Amino acid sequence: MNQGTFDRLWGELEPIGRDGASGGYRRFALTAEDAALREWFAAAAAARGLDLVLDRAGNQWAWWGDPDLQPGVAIGSHLDSVPDGGAFDGPLGVISAFAALDALRAKGFTPDRPIGVVNFGDEEGARFGVACAGSRVITGALSPERALGLADADGVTMDEALQRAGRVTEELGRDEDALRRVGAFVELHVEQGRGLVDLGRPVAVGSGIRPHGRWRIELPGRADHAGTTRLADRDDPMLALAAVIVQARHAAERHGAVATCGKVRVQPNGVNAIPSLVTAWLDARGSRRDAVAQVVAEVRAVVEAQGGSLSEESWTEATGFDVPLTHRLAALLDNAPVLDTGAGHDAGVLATAGVPTAMLFVRNPTGVSHSPAEFAERDDCLAGVAALTDVVAELAR
Amino acid sequence: MNQGTFDRLWGELEPIGRDGASGGYRRFALTAEDAALREWFAAAAAARGLDLVLDRAGNQWAWWGDPDLQPGVAIGSHLDSVPDGGAFDGPLGVISAFAALDALRAKGFTPDRPIGVVNFGDEEGARFGVACAGSRVITGALSPERALGLADADGVTMDEALQRAGRVTEELGRDEDALRRVGAFVELHVEQGRGLVDLGRPVAVGSGIRPHGRWRIELPGRADHAGTTRLADRDDPMLALAAVIVQARHAAERHGAVATCGKVRVQPNGVNAIPSLVTAWLDARGSRRDAVAQVVAEVRAVVEAQGGSLSEESWTEATGFDVPLTHRLAALLDNAPVLDTGAGHDAGVLATAGVPTAMLFVRNPTGVSHSPAEFAERDDCLAGVAALTDVVAELAR
Repeated sequence: MNQGTFDRLWGELEPIGRDGASGGYRRFALTAEDAALREWFAAAAAARGLDLVLDRAGNQWAWWGDPDLQPGVAIGSHLDSVPDGGAFDGPLGVISAFAALDALRAKGFTPDRPIGVVNFGDEEGARFGVACAGSRVITGALSPERALGLADADGVTMDEALQRAGRVTEELGRDEDALRRVGAFVELHVEQGRGLVDLGRPVAVGSGIRPHGRWRIELPGRADHAGTTRLADRDDPMLALAAVIVQARHAAERHGAVATCGKVRVQPNGVNAIPSLVTAWLDARGSRRDAVAQVVAEVRAVVEAQGGSLSEESWTEATGFDVPLTHRLAALLDNAPVLDTGAGHDAGVLATAGVPTAMLFVRNPTGVSHSPAEFAERDDCLAGVAALTDVVAELAR
Repeated sequence: MNQGTFDRLWGELEPIGRDGASGGYRRFALTAEDAALREWFAAAAAARGLDLVLDRAGNQWAWWGDPDLQPGVAIGSHLDSVPDGGAFDGPLGVISAFAALDALRAKGFTPDRPIGVVNFGDEEGARFGVACAGSRVITGALSPERALGLADADGVTMDEALQRAGRVTEELGRDEDALRRVGAFVELHVEQGRGLVDLGRPVAVGSGIRPHGRWRIELPGRADHAGTTRLADRDDPMLALAAVIVQARHAAERHGAVATCGKVRVQPNGVNAIPSLVTAWLDARGSRRDAVAQVVAEVRAVVEAQGGSLSEESWTEATGFDVPLTHRLAALLDNAPVLDTGAGHDAGVLATAGVPTAMLFVRNPTGVSHSPAEFAERDDCLAGVAALTDVVAELAR
């Protein structure tokens, strides 16, 4: 296989959107960083003589062969990040896809079916709040009206951001043509957890994604002076926030799920001002749908007792990847372990839309992700490229 | 008295820095809004033929008469605001000062001592975190080194902000000349509380400021993925924040003080990311120094138990205004009530520096301040102007 491709592409991506202070990445949808990442993808496609096709959400597909003649095998992932995210979540899948394609060509492999590399836009939803926005739009899971109206923290809508980025917005929507071209989709991703560490293996096949969702919590209060307002006269939403944070954790413990308040916005956020409004977001996931629903119901009870409101921003049912395909890949890859995950992926969105879909996971020595500390050993990354190469050779033959 | 002056000046200031969404004000130090407010002040001084003098912190003084020949009577307040602050906190004192001066002239009053109107800079400390920065610098309570190094939320230091605003920074420091010019200082301010409502009076004289301070709390955690990290493996600083918020409230209740967490910063602040760091600010005040110290000690204990740290950003001892002056003004103003306050003011900083200082408070029907809902009836504002006019006539005679 072609280690040179991997190292070179890795080195090209490394500086884009890196924050000097945290060492993490800030690659948000429809920003200058996003534009640089898309140019990088287009250049990588052009360098390989691939046909670059944009779908109706602007996701980039680079095809070797014509997928309008017969559906192809698509591989890839996304290039955007959470705030201060790691270098691997997303880019590892895209780089590994180009490296696998180069490896196949270096071997003189001639595919019987087209092979495509994809860069899905706005997978993390860091800017507009809805994860997997790119794949959700083309599968119809996210309507163009709702997508265009999503606003970032500065009040800029996706519609405005698309226009500022010089992107066409009227075409946004479900894209039957783009989906028809994908006979199978395989997304390689750094593992987010320590399953492979415990098993002593570099690569796993994904079985599915646990149900997960996001909820927005509004906790209104009454703005007032921190120094002059008696405790008894206060309506301080920061106390409500504390109750919500504690309840989310306890409810998750009770129901064997995970729940997180990772994002908070305080208004006006002044040292000497009792807040007028605290907005918090709840991320909750679990193995079972009803466990997550219980957690959310118990958090909602506390929110409403505090005079607040809780609304769903996104919900994704448990997603199972294609079972025959998963077994076929595990067998092909020396009986690779089969693991599920608590993280959402574009692969899950495509699977839900009926596309035969599988995932590969690459070992993560600490299990940490969504952090500058996110890491995978280079040897494990190269094992991932080799596995992906074998998978594509199998599926495109 | 001159109602026209009051209404006209009020109308001129009203649009500057007003946030359309909240209806509150965002007038922060060394911003475009601040520059507009300073231009307004300079124009109001020029229109009255007053001599505009900047001190070594850039505070604006508009003198009628020469305070270098003999110390004068200074009146005024500040024009900056907390985030989404009200229209009265600060501007009421500056506008009333100009209106009082106009009223004296309309009566043909000839002062025996100079009269000055002052606009202190950065009273709220909303941008750089230290309240009363302008008066603290000229009295030496805040060293120029520390002031220049203070940074806003974007990492811009006061030094950089001064330079961007075209202001000279090398002169920053304690200003003996500016202090020598002030024989007495009287700050009129909207009441922050309902003392006057309960007493059925429009104007009070201030007796002093309760001890108060600000502390910065750093709660480190370990960034990780919200969906894939087991609860047992988490180091989530949002839980520590909840404990701090609850402890601050309970400790304040136990010790008869007030404590507020009004400002929070979460890093990276992503919905699906366990935070790497939560920073919170504690504002604590009370009638007694030891009560505040107890509250802070009990919050510190929780912070440190969570692996965090707490550091003092500012501390102001109980401040008593000049006792003979306070009694003299109360007698002059029809035996006005004498009230203390939990809010810090430039008047307190000057009093601590040895300047004979008093305050006047104007009735606030709800007691609410630091909020778009902050309010005072026009009749009460005009009663404040009349009181201030009488006070200046008395002191400058």
